[in-house]
Amino acid sequence: MAHPLEDMRALIRGAPGADRAAVEAVRRRNAELTKPEGALGRLEALVEWLAAWQGRPVPEVSMPLVAVFAANHGIAARGVSAYPADVTKQMVANFAAGGAAINQICQASDIGLKVLELALDYPTPDITETDAFDEMGLAATMAFGMEAIAGGTDLLCIGEMGIGNTAVAAAIYHALYGGEAADWTGRGTGVDDAGLARKTAAVAAAAGRLAGETDGLEILRRVGGREIAAMAGVIIAARHQRIPVIVDGYVCTAAAAVLHQIDSHAIDHCLIGHLSAEPGHVRVLERLGKKPVLDLGLRLGEGTGAALAAGIVRAAARTHAGMATFSSAGVSSRDD
Amino acid sequence: MAHPLEDMRALIRGAPGADRAAVEAVRRRNAELTKPEGALGRLEALVEWLAAWQGRPVPEVSMPLVAVFAANHGIAARGVSAYPADVTKQMVANFAAGGAAINQICQASDIGLKVLELALDYPTPDITETDAFDEMGLAATMAFGMEAIAGGTDLLCIGEMGIGNTAVAAAIYHALYGGEAADWTGRGTGVDDAGLARKTAAVAAAAGRLAGETDGLEILRRVGGREIAAMAGVIIAARHQRIPVIVDGYVCTAAAAVLHQIDSHAIDHCLIGHLSAEPGHVRVLERLGKKPVLDLGLRLGEGTGAALAAGIVRAAARTHAGMATFSSAGVSSRDD
Repeated sequence: MAHPLEDMRALIRGAPGADRAAVEAVRRRNAELTKPEGALGRLEALVEWLAAWQGRPVPEVSMPLVAVFAANHGIAARGVSAYPADVTKQMVANFAAGGAAINQICQASDIGLKVLELALDYPTPDITETDAFDEMGLAATMAFGMEAIAGGTDLLCIGEMGIGNTAVAAAIYHALYGGEAADWTGRGTGVDDAGLARKTAAVAAAAGRLAGETDGLEILRRVGGREIAAMAGVIIAARHQRIPVIVDGYVCTAAAAVLHQIDSHAIDHCLIGHLSAEPGHVRVLERLGKKPVLDLGLRLGEGTGAALAAGIVRAAARTHAGMATFSSAGVSSRDD
Repeated sequence: MAHPLEDMRALIRGAPGADRAAVEAVRRRNAELTKPEGALGRLEALVEWLAAWQGRPVPEVSMPLVAVFAANHGIAARGVSAYPADVTKQMVANFAAGGAAINQICQASDIGLKVLELALDYPTPDITETDAFDEMGLAATMAFGMEAIAGGTDLLCIGEMGIGNTAVAAAIYHALYGGEAADWTGRGTGVDDAGLARKTAAVAAAAGRLAGETDGLEILRRVGGREIAAMAGVIIAARHQRIPVIVDGYVCTAAAAVLHQIDSHAIDHCLIGHLSAEPGHVRVLERLGKKPVLDLGLRLGEGTGAALAAGIVRAAARTHAGMATFSSAGVSSRDD
């Protein structure tokens, strides 16, 4: 890997497109199902999306997976979070013990759960002062993220845990989209006013080091974090393996946003699971042209919003695959 | 039953209130769970709502049920639907055979399904000309609806099937809330422009017979339909049996709206599962002060939106009941 990030760029730009034949097959069957045309609204669009990116004329969700990526961040020392940095590791132990929100949601919804730790004892350097990665380090972290789907899945949900990482995501958005640091900086886990001021200043300082930098991967390298890099990696890998991806909230979307900067079609196989309560999320989604499935005021991370959305997507797939047609059920269509 | 509707009024006004002690218990436990305060957003409010109306300090959803009420309507002869009236009965057969959308969603989400037929061979009279019920008939239909929960459930979703029933619901809303018939009349299953004009005229004619009538039960009696009356009945019965209710879309909400007119607290135990694509629904929900859980552009009925919302509510309950606390998991809270 003499030019490790060039290899990543090639993977992003060389990603396979939608399976148009599968989408057409879904539309043909959908028109025959025992319901008025379009009456299942967004569910119908979700089935087309699944078909397009699974490459299956009758898509299915039989082994959905939530992959939670955990990392630590030097910027946490700037007082940007309401919680101490130790909490990242404690929450990883809580995931292992089954005590976190995402464990319960996955159990309730029959979704697999995998937690990937990214060198928790070695936080990335403080991005207000120093780049997060060198090129090789970023490429290696992205490659590590790709391993999340090695065990197989037909619908991947990505989530994260990392004290300080809403500040990191905000720095990425500020670098990608400009504006003021305050446009992208929210209260995360619940910082007070003084904490929000410190966080906004840190986001401004981090993005300020990048004046003029417009390249998504370079922005990720300089002001990113390991969980965001790993999620960017697995988004790319999932595309090549025909696995649709549901992205969780504010932090996860940063992984999609850096890829979108490289190629605006690179995240066509990604759905945004929910609209985060973090105020900047809606502005990011406008830029990505993505409409979230759910809007429940969540701001927890862990993949919780993505997992809840996966339940809707699975129900959509089952409905499409299992419903009767007008002719098989002997139901009069509007044209009868 | 000398005054059958007076007995119903007494049941509506004498309904038990929220269990405040159960809500307080939920709030205390919620504050100790391993997540930032408020980070589960609407899920936290849903758990409080379940506790309040189940009367359980740790609410649970272990036997959710979708009850679909099917009826026929004389107003269908006015050409207000894109489908012939025969379709109601054909769809009931489709429910029995497992071929409808609601069957698939219930299977995907592990929710029970019960279909209640309301004299499909005897449509209510055309409400543009004649009252739908006499007092005894309305009371009997409401009482029949109450039977839907006789087998037990801890979360009831109500849905409906009935060609012509969006016109009936629109007539109820127009009578309850005034405005123009067009404010409440949408395309339902997909009528064309001429059909929409016929439907709007029929809604105006039906509500026009009621000039000055403001009582919810009397409006239901004169321009209602059997599925809407039965759903109003089961909403009342569920309240008395401490069963929270998730109401599906535009037609089902009419059953809640007539009760709300009698007593503005009568539907505090009801959640609106989703925002219907029928344009009048958002206006009704403003008047009821209700925020739907989902917004997926559905306009199918059958309880589909309520059933999808039930999956979210169940996940919320499991999360609350199953998560670790800061002390049990050894996770540092913000105050440590």
